[in-house]
Amino acid sequence: MKKNGKVFVIGIGPGDEAYRAPAATRALMKSDTIIGYKTYIELIEETLEGKEVIDSGMRKEVERCQLALTLAEEGKVVSLVSSGDPGIYGMAGALLQVKQQRQSDIEVEVIPGITAVSAAAALLGAPLMHDFAVISLSDLLTDWELIQKRVALAGEGDFVIALYNPKSKGRTIQIEETQKILLKYRSKETPVGIVKNGTRQGEVVIVTTLGEMLLHPIDMLTVVIIGNSHTTMMNDVMITPRGYGI
Amino acid sequence: MKKNGKVFVIGIGPGDEAYRAPAATRALMKSDTIIGYKTYIELIEETLEGKEVIDSGMRKEVERCQLALTLAEEGKVVSLVSSGDPGIYGMAGALLQVKQQRQSDIEVEVIPGITAVSAAAALLGAPLMHDFAVISLSDLLTDWELIQKRVALAGEGDFVIALYNPKSKGRTIQIEETQKILLKYRSKETPVGIVKNGTRQGEVVIVTTLGEMLLHPIDMLTVVIIGNSHTTMMNDVMITPRGYGI
Ligand SMILES: C[S@@+](CC[C@H](N)C(=O)[O-])C[C@H]1O[C@@H](n2cnc3c(N)ncnc32)[C@H](O)[C@@H]1O
Ligand SMILES: C[S@@+](CC[C@H](N)C(=O)[O-])C[C@H]1O[C@@H](n2cnc3c(N)ncnc32)[C@H](O)[C@@H]1O
Repeated sequence: MKKNGKVFVIGIGPGDEAYRAPAATRALMKSDTIIGYKTYIELIEETLEGKEVIDSGMRKEVERCQLALTLAEEGKVVSLVSSGDPGIYGMAGALLQVKQQRQSDIEVEVIPGITAVSAAAALLGAPLMHDFAVISLSDLLTDWELIQKRVALAGEGDFVIALYNPKSKGRTIQIEETQKILLKYRSKETPVGIVKNGTRQGEVVIVTTLGEMLLHPIDMLTVVIIGNSHTTMMNDVMITPRGYGI
Repeated sequence: MKKNGKVFVIGIGPGDEAYRAPAATRALMKSDTIIGYKTYIELIEETLEGKEVIDSGMRKEVERCQLALTLAEEGKVVSLVSSGDPGIYGMAGALLQVKQQRQSDIEVEVIPGITAVSAAAALLGAPLMHDFAVISLSDLLTDWELIQKRVALAGEGDFVIALYNPKSKGRTIQIEETQKILLKYRSKETPVGIVKNGTRQGEVVIVTTLGEMLLHPIDMLTVVIIGNSHTTMMNDVMITPRGYGI
C-alpha cells in the first residue's frame, strides 16, 4: 500500500523567525517538499537543507495547489508556504478549493501565523484595540466597486481599517480613491500608520495622517492602518483607546 | 545609577505552545515578573520557574498596567501577558495609554501573537480569505448602539465577520441581536463557524449556519466566524473563495 502524503498550508509570519510559530517550523522540518514564492522561501532558508524546494513565480496559485496535492498523492509531505497567516489573503483557500474540486482525500493541515496587521500594529503601538476591518485593495480578484463600497462602509462604521495590498507598480489609483472616500467620514488629522517590510530586512515604520498619507512611499510590501475617530498619535505611538477612561 | 527596567506586552497566542512565537517565549524567559490572568498564565506554566508571578483577576486592566510600569521603574523586566495578540482586545492599548498618562519613559515592546480568529479560521478551513471585519460584542467598554451599527454595516458590505467576546453569562442578548441584524443582509444558510478554546484543552469546533447558530453553545471562550455571501461549507470545511475561478 502506498504511504499517504499530506499538505501543510503554512504561515511563516511577517518575516523574522522570532515571530514564526514553532508549529510552522516543525511542519517545514517534516516536509519532503516546500512550495512557495522565492521571497518567502528566502525567509526560511535555515530550515531548507535536504529538501526539495519548488519556487513558484507570481500568479500561479492554482497550479501550486495542484502540484502540492499531486505530490501528496504520491506519498510526499508537502508544505505550501504563505507569508503571515495562510488564511488571510494566503494559500489556504485556494488549496482547499482545489482539493474539493479534485475530490481529493489528502489530509490538509492549515497552520496559522501572525498576520501582517498584527506585526504592523505592534510596531506602531496599539492601533487595532477596537473593532477593525481588513480590506485588500487588490482588484485582481475582486470588483473595484465592491472594494470601494467596503471602504465607505468601514469608514461610516468608524472601524479602524487595515489595508493589505495597498498599491503596486501598475495599480496606484486605489489608495488615492480610498483616501478620498475616508475623508468623507474622518478628519484629515486621523492618525495613519504605514509599515513596510514589518520585521523583515528593510523595515520602515511611518506615522502620518489621513491627509498626508500619500506623501509617503506605499507599495505591495506595505500594510496601512487608518485610525478611527478616537485614535491618537503621541510621540509617534499610535493608540486606539478602548474606553478604559484612563 | 539605577538599572532601567522594561515592559514586554506579550501575546501568547491562542493556547497551545506550538502557536506561540519564539519572541514571546524569549521575553518571558528574560522577565523578572510576569503579570496576567490566571487562565493565561496557566498556559505558559513551563516558562515560569524562578519568576515572580502576579495573577490579576478580571477587570483590573488599568491597575495591572500601573503595576507593570512601577515595577519597571524599579528596574525590573516585566511581562504583561495577553492571550492571542496583545494588540487585538488585549493589553497593549491600556499599557501604552497609562504610560502616556504617567509620562513614563520606560521602554515598552509589544510582541504580536496569533490572534483567536486566525487560529479558529485554520481549524475551520479558510473562512477569512476575503475582506473581513473583527467586532467585539462586549458592551462593557463600547456603546451597544455603535456595536449594532458596525454589525449592520459589516453585513451590508458583505464582509466576513469575526465576533470576539460573543456572549457571557450575564450578556446573552448581543449575539441574538447580531443574528437578527445579519439575517437582513444574508440568508439563513450562510455558513458559520464556532470555535471554543481553539488549540486549548477543551477545543470545540462547530460548523453551522446563520439560521441555526444560536442552537450551539457560545460563550466567552468562543470566537464566531460568519461567512459572506460566497462562503461555502462542504464536508465541514468552511471556505470563502477569493475568486480564483477554480
Ligand atoms: C497576498 S497578501 C498576504 C498576507 C499574508 N498572508 C498575511 O497574513 O500577512 C500580501 C500583503 O500583505 C501585507 N504584508 C505581508 N507581509 C508584510 C510585512 N512583513 N510588512 C508589511 N506588510 C506585509 C502587504 O499589504 C502585502 O501587500
Ligand atoms: C479579551 S479578548 C482577547 C483576544 C486576544 N487578545 C486575541 O487576539 O485572540 C477574548 C476573546 O477572544 C476570543 N478568544 C481568545 N482566545 C480564544 C481561543 N483560544 N479560542 C476561541 N476564542 C478565543 C474569544 O472571543 C474571547 O471572548
